[in-house]
Amino acid sequence: MTSQERGSVRGLLLAKGDEDNNIVWHEGHVDRSRREALLDQKGVVIWFTGLSGSGKSTIAFTVEHALAARSRLAYVLDGDNIRHGLNADLGFTAGDREENIRRIGEVARLFADAGFITLSSFVSPYKADRDNIRALLGSGDFLEVFVNTPLELCEQRDPKGLYKKARAGQIPNFTGVSDRYEAPVDPELEIHTADCTVAQAAQQVLDLLASRGKIW
Amino acid sequence: MTSQERGSVRGLLLAKGDEDNNIVWHEGHVDRSRREALLDQKGVVIWFTGLSGSGKSTIAFTVEHALAARSRLAYVLDGDNIRHGLNADLGFTAGDREENIRRIGEVARLFADAGFITLSSFVSPYKADRDNIRALLGSGDFLEVFVNTPLELCEQRDPKGLYKKARAGQIPNFTGVSDRYEAPVDPELEIHTADCTVAQAAQQVLDLLASRGKIW
Repeated sequence: MTSQERGSVRGLLLAKGDEDNNIVWHEGHVDRSRREALLDQKGVVIWFTGLSGSGKSTIAFTVEHALAARSRLAYVLDGDNIRHGLNADLGFTAGDREENIRRIGEVARLFADAGFITLSSFVSPYKADRDNIRALLGSGDFLEVFVNTPLELCEQRDPKGLYKKARAGQIPNFTGVSDRYEAPVDPELEIHTADCTVAQAAQQVLDLLASRGKIW
Repeated sequence: MTSQERGSVRGLLLAKGDEDNNIVWHEGHVDRSRREALLDQKGVVIWFTGLSGSGKSTIAFTVEHALAARSRLAYVLDGDNIRHGLNADLGFTAGDREENIRRIGEVARLFADAGFITLSSFVSPYKADRDNIRALLGSGDFLEVFVNTPLELCEQRDPKGLYKKARAGQIPNFTGVSDRYEAPVDPELEIHTADCTVAQAAQQVLDLLASRGKIW
């Protein structure tokens, strides 16, 4: 829309003269495709799901660094930057867990729209919650990655000592111990961490991004 | 941290061999400074505040397009992409309005951390709410821009017909009509839209970004 059109609509001083220093009046957002062209990549959400200790965040961070090394822009959404900030008001009731995942999905949607390769790393144990985000984003923007690590291995690893606490009854509704994990039925990628290295797992994610035309 | 270190800590298959195809195992986020170097800009939040119809969004969009034309990456957070998504569960009670602004501040913080020039366009009428976000972000990342347009001009303009409805009593607690607007005391920039064009207003924002070392 040009200044003349806007000016004629509004007839206010704010509407006059829109091209000083090549700055052009605009009434709407820059298109996503323009940001993607600037970034030389496509926005997307890689949604990692899996048990606590399965390796989601390690794989996400390794992918993030590998992309940075290739001059691609990625951002990891995880407990560190979400649970203590946006979702600091939420607890661990069923309703709060659902709202936690809903908000993460909405933020991931904004990041994908902004052009980022968005790496979401949360247990997200329930299929319905993940399916809601898939519906929100559309399947082109939502790539579900099941980090499939046997419970025994996660528990043996127990990097944060959470399984130990859960077994001692100190953490209620702990996924895999006292709450269910609903494995993805048809994820875009399933990583068997017991059979590969972190680097191999990250490479599978990079291959997925390339095969879906998000990086090249 | 190298694979050897991690391997020796965990001794699990997941930890072995981390440098296939130059992919290196990482346990933490890519630094913000690395994203900023890739983007050739600094992350920041421009927080526009002002009455409904004051011109916040028009200025924000014009800045966004001007930055895109200079190959800078910006993203506008506004009612369109927030109220219908992340904050769709919120109404207009005092508590919901406060929560609305809190969440927007948290999302803006993530975008600034991601390296974006983040343009937030909400009435955000209360000083305390804005000050909370300034405290959250730190003053280097939070640049408050007061879009100062006289109420009479906003009401005369009334692009969405909201003042008309508010005067008819159809919108309770409407800022400027039946609820207060607390003007910023010491904003980083005050734009008097009655005395400048949209392009001039946008130029003032670009000048602010340059003077704070966010673009160059």
